[in-house]
Amino acid sequence: MPAIDLNADLGESFGAYRIGCDAELLKLITSANVACGFHGGDPVVMRETLLAAARGGVGIGAHPGFADLQGFGRRPIRMAPDEVEAMVVYQIGALIGMARATGTAVTHCKVHGALNNMACVEPDLAMACARAVAAVDPEMLFVVMPGSALEAAGAQAGLPLAREVFADRGYDDAAMLVPRGQPGAMLHDPEEAATRMLRFVETGAIESLSGKRIPVQIDTVCVHGDSPEALETARLLRQRFAAAGVALRPMHRGLAR
Amino acid sequence: MPAIDLNADLGESFGAYRIGCDAELLKLITSANVACGFHGGDPVVMRETLLAAARGGVGIGAHPGFADLQGFGRRPIRMAPDEVEAMVVYQIGALIGMARATGTAVTHCKVHGALNNMACVEPDLAMACARAVAAVDPEMLFVVMPGSALEAAGAQAGLPLAREVFADRGYDDAAMLVPRGQPGAMLHDPEEAATRMLRFVETGAIESLSGKRIPVQIDTVCVHGDSPEALETARLLRQRFAAAGVALRPMHRGLAR
Amino acid sequence: MPAIDLNADLGESFGAYRIGCDAELLKLITSANVACGFHGGDPVVMRETLLAAARGGVGIGAHPGFADLQGFGRRPIRMAPDEVEAMVVYQIGALIGMARATGTAVTHCKVHGALNNMACVEPDLAMACARAVAAVDPEMLFVVMPGSALEAAGAQAGLPLAREVFADRGYDDAAMLVPRGQPGAMLHDPEEAATRMLRFVETGAIESLSGKRIPVQIDTVCVHGDSPEALETARLLRQRFAAAGVALRPMHRGLAR
Amino acid sequence: MPAIDLNADLGESFGAYRIGCDAELLKLITSANVACGFHGGDPVVMRETLLAAARGGVGIGAHPGFADLQGFGRRPIRMAPDEVEAMVVYQIGALIGMARATGTAVTHCKVHGALNNMACVEPDLAMACARAVAAVDPEMLFVVMPGSALEAAGAQAGLPLAREVFADRGYDDAAMLVPRGQPGAMLHDPEEAATRMLRFVETGAIESLSGKRIPVQIDTVCVHGDSPEALETARLLRQRFAAAGVALRPMHRGLAR
Repeated sequence: MPAIDLNADLGESFGAYRIGCDAELLKLITSANVACGFHGGDPVVMRETLLAAARGGVGIGAHPGFADLQGFGRRPIRMAPDEVEAMVVYQIGALIGMARATGTAVTHCKVHGALNNMACVEPDLAMACARAVAAVDPEMLFVVMPGSALEAAGAQAGLPLAREVFADRGYDDAAMLVPRGQPGAMLHDPEEAATRMLRFVETGAIESLSGKRIPVQIDTVCVHGDSPEALETARLLRQRFAAAGVALRPMHRGLAR
Repeated sequence: MPAIDLNADLGESFGAYRIGCDAELLKLITSANVACGFHGGDPVVMRETLLAAARGGVGIGAHPGFADLQGFGRRPIRMAPDEVEAMVVYQIGALIGMARATGTAVTHCKVHGALNNMACVEPDLAMACARAVAAVDPEMLFVVMPGSALEAAGAQAGLPLAREVFADRGYDDAAMLVPRGQPGAMLHDPEEAATRMLRFVETGAIESLSGKRIPVQIDTVCVHGDSPEALETARLLRQRFAAAGVALRPMHRGLAR
Repeated sequence: MPAIDLNADLGESFGAYRIGCDAELLKLITSANVACGFHGGDPVVMRETLLAAARGGVGIGAHPGFADLQGFGRRPIRMAPDEVEAMVVYQIGALIGMARATGTAVTHCKVHGALNNMACVEPDLAMACARAVAAVDPEMLFVVMPGSALEAAGAQAGLPLAREVFADRGYDDAAMLVPRGQPGAMLHDPEEAATRMLRFVETGAIESLSGKRIPVQIDTVCVHGDSPEALETARLLRQRFAAAGVALRPMHRGLAR
Repeated sequence: MPAIDLNADLGESFGAYRIGCDAELLKLITSANVACGFHGGDPVVMRETLLAAARGGVGIGAHPGFADLQGFGRRPIRMAPDEVEAMVVYQIGALIGMARATGTAVTHCKVHGALNNMACVEPDLAMACARAVAAVDPEMLFVVMPGSALEAAGAQAGLPLAREVFADRGYDDAAMLVPRGQPGAMLHDPEEAATRMLRFVETGAIESLSGKRIPVQIDTVCVHGDSPEALETARLLRQRFAAAGVALRPMHRGLAR
């Protein structure tokens, strides 16, 4: 029976500031990327998120980002790779510490926001991220976009990889994301998004806007929780996968092969 | 052969800002309390400090404090014990992550500044700190002032304890520190400070300003590195201990009993 | 015709984090206390808030607080009065700068959260706040709780004062707020809160939980916007004041005497 | 009698962290660019710096930068021009507030570090900075590199401009700075730097590494204070200008024409 993972970003609230739909998402996803206090999240939020994820049987990953709460980690910051590596180690370590304290476990890492975008195309930043993960835990799953510099860096660092596709984003013929702001960058129709994603997973291929099919390994599907339609997409995805006989399970279980 | 540890706070630089005399101190002390990025330190500084401490054969401890870089962790902040616990877990975890990445090990924890002061006299904050340490690593040495709420909390949490005295601070008849600003709070003469400290260690007793001797277990002596006289005190202490046949060794080795 | 002001805290969102019901509140209040980027708010939010307040004909005040975004300025931080003074000057200055840039004007100052609470009972902190306001703009209205150390400090600093009562808080027989957590601290019924507040304003007296009446000058009523019932209280207050012939106008107009 | 200004960055210390040689520099320069709490500085440091500058008869300017204390404002951060504008307004406002409170005056603005570098070549960021200054105070001198996008933006915003050259940096044939790391980027010999700078000022031209002379208006010379040789360069510059009959005066006086 084929299997897939659904991942989403969680635990991005901060102090009195609430953001996201964590409770709803936890019922839909199988892996959570937990903010580590730099672009979002704080120690109390991290603790709550780890406990909630574990209660829901959802796999837990570190979600390190730039130290930019105001920009939510979405603003590119030019840091030396060496600084990035230390920053990522710090955040993963902090989350692992919280996992120890809550009797939970951190089994994957997905880089957040602008740092992810930059590391997808800059090999030295990609290696900084991969080295950081490998240095803290060489068994940790490294979530990467197929074809990106992050994938190459993760492989070079000897990390187990989880290849990711995005439920609500359009792809070009090189299997890269269509940049936000360009036509077709975002899929706004949950029905269409879910149907397309099932096709990706069943055929083992990314389908570009022009209809080209690019075979890739797909281990996890990223869904978002920051809009009603995003939640609806996640709900539909679960239904479609179930109806099609595709099992949903946390990426760290699916990849134990 | 009797033994003692010398500990000092290290790694409190931040970005372009340098503070302390880490290089000099590392030649004198046997255990380093490493700032974890909240009251001082940053991921790059933490990495450098761990590597330098390990090279020098110096034991490594976490030194968590309030998230108050401007106040250097010295301003009391009223947080709920639950928040403090999460905050301390986070910082210890971050340092352990960095230790993994550098092939070093975190073997003790000493709470920093205002949080330490508050936790010495507030049992709920003391328990929050002790629970945090025990939750991340129940084998971690917990550095405490004899007679403080932190000592009681550490014992209750089942943590191995390292009792600490201060080379440059005066004590009252209850073995508590004379508050800064009061007469006798600070010992400014390195010779006198070193001589007194050797007496503390050899007799196993704190000596108050009035001359009263209060027997306590003494596992480690805190020295500072933020003034020429503090460095001189540390140098003299090493000489006196050596001359008196008191071995210097990292606290986590001394306490492995 | 008697007149009163309704004030509320606004502009406490931060980056991607939204908090409060600013749009709804702006239709109900006559003066806005605008966060200055330390406990909440950021430069973009400040600009938007000033423009929205000006469009709504609502008076604008600075709302400086502790540099504690995670604690939303509600955690007491022990700072030297001298530091507090500089911190308050900085925040008022930043808001005035933004007001210049938006063609608006800052006409009052209300200290936020824990700093306000502490300054209500600690004369040296109260004087630090009052001196800061007077140093930046001696014509700026200083919002104070009648009978507090802030009121005394504001008077001593020669500032024009706006005495404030709270729509949803209970008072004791000394006209002080019943501490949160104690019975009667919060009034949860909007009808009752609005009726009581109209009585306060019409009689010129605070009424304690025990029924005692303490005559005080009342220039402004603080309403909150962080719950549906708080918004409802504000709505009812407007109605009651209108029905009773009490005019609503920004505090800086009401006090131009 | 010809005149020139010497400017330097000041007030970049933060809390317990000291940086720079402010006291020495204040005896040498005629205009100080005062950090505004984002890339360096804090409210207390700002107050001290303004008072010290005023005592020394040194002109005061705002020195806004990215909100990046760890990177000291030297790391490029990709922000929307609209965000940059608000951020610059905020910082200038805060410094003006502190100037009011200390009886001093802010008469120029020089953008700091990475933001300056980016705004030199990106017209939309340059306009954001210039609009911010003009919105707060259209009389404020705007310090710009001749030929940069900042110069064009300042002119378009109607700001009075102070054209700046760098005492210790090499120029290419387009009068642009040779990027750090390339040969000739830095002048390390104080004698040579001072002699060259006098030539720049006397001839009204920048001289490139290849010996090309590019005529530009020169209103102020930037010196640094972060190395012994930088201080020495500043000292020599004063001597050379004095010997050559070039008067030193704050840029806001020199430009009152």
